[in-house]
Amino acid sequence: MKLKVKLLPQSIKNFIDAFSGLPGIGPRQATRLAFKLVAGGKNKIEELSRAVSELKNLKLCSQCFFIHSNFESLCDICKNPNRRKDIIMIVEKETDVISLERPKKINGRYLVLGELDKAGILESGQKLRLNNLKTFITKELADPSAGSGQGKAEEIIIATNPTTYGDLNASIIAKELTGFAKKITRLGRGIPTGGEIEFADEDTLGAALERRN
Amino acid sequence: MKLKVKLLPQSIKNFIDAFSGLPGIGPRQATRLAFKLVAGGKNKIEELSRAVSELKNLKLCSQCFFIHSNFESLCDICKNPNRRKDIIMIVEKETDVISLERPKKINGRYLVLGELDKAGILESGQKLRLNNLKTFITKELADPSAGSGQGKAEEIIIATNPTTYGDLNASIIAKELTGFAKKITRLGRGIPTGGEIEFADEDTLGAALERRN
Repeated sequence: MKLKVKLLPQSIKNFIDAFSGLPGIGPRQATRLAFKLVAGGKNKIEELSRAVSELKNLKLCSQCFFIHSNFESLCDICKNPNRRKDIIMIVEKETDVISLERPKKINGRYLVLGELDKAGILESGQKLRLNNLKTFITKELADPSAGSGQGKAEEIIIATNPTTYGDLNASIIAKELTGFAKKITRLGRGIPTGGEIEFADEDTLGAALERRN
Repeated sequence: MKLKVKLLPQSIKNFIDAFSGLPGIGPRQATRLAFKLVAGGKNKIEELSRAVSELKNLKLCSQCFFIHSNFESLCDICKNPNRRKDIIMIVEKETDVISLERPKKINGRYLVLGELDKAGILESGQKLRLNNLKTFITKELADPSAGSGQGKAEEIIIATNPTTYGDLNASIIAKELTGFAKKITRLGRGIPTGGEIEFADEDTLGAALERRN
């Protein structure tokens, strides 16, 4: 939507410019937000401004690239000695880490790769992150008792979405990591808990049949 | 969505608390936004924080309640001497002012009433705004040559949405303003320009037939 901006004060225009373009926020919603905030009063505006500003203090973990506010360079997961070093889940987004932590099933670590391209091409930043993981595996997981210095992860779980694109990207990542893990796995597929067979689509049912246990 | 917050730094939690609850933003989108902003870097964060903070300088027009950043208490429309004082469009939202200004058809003024309740009840703030308009009409539009001191608007256009709720609210507002205008009108209804008869719903077609010209 092209807004007739002549009527709008400069500070509203600046707000719309700054916020539209963020994920899920277009110019129309940014405009509504601006009016809402102005109506909400100075204290609320101050609170929001501070909430944004304080994000400046966050860092990305030098190992898994998850967000943290620790003084050192590692996040809470990576610096936790009780977490297994040799099980690594590869995810696209930080929010996926939060989701995968919830069931408390895997006591491993993560690599946040960033959202993957639909064409199945890894960006240079993503390649760097994968190389970071390879270095970690080679150095930190090296078994001094074994002859070769090269370490190997026990398991790498490629937790991309169970979609066509997610499958494509998972296979590309798996190829990149060949030789760096004893086992490369993906998340199980089937009918979601609480779901009904009647409403499951054909692919889901097919996966559920293949993976019956 | 209830996020497992233990993993998240306090500043992310504060951001999510502050932003979820704004119109159209839930906790999930607020979380995504936070991660996106952190990934975007300190300069972008600073820019956004400033864009929010600068909304503090905005005021509501003392006459029509539209937003402005003028030193005086009136907005650009209300202080414009070339605008007719005796044609007033009553709208719910500031964005409606922007939309209605675009066709450049009516050189009048506005009253921004705020979003109306679906039950057709005017809030006390909205009643105050209507009373403000009544006072304006009585005083500013008084005709000294006429016997009575009471002024009247030439036309009040009640520009609520053409929905069941909008119609209900329009009739309530019209009742409130009886005697304050020579003519109380609403926006025309019919098939939108560029629309096709085939896809117009029954009510729209009915309105288009009634209002044929």
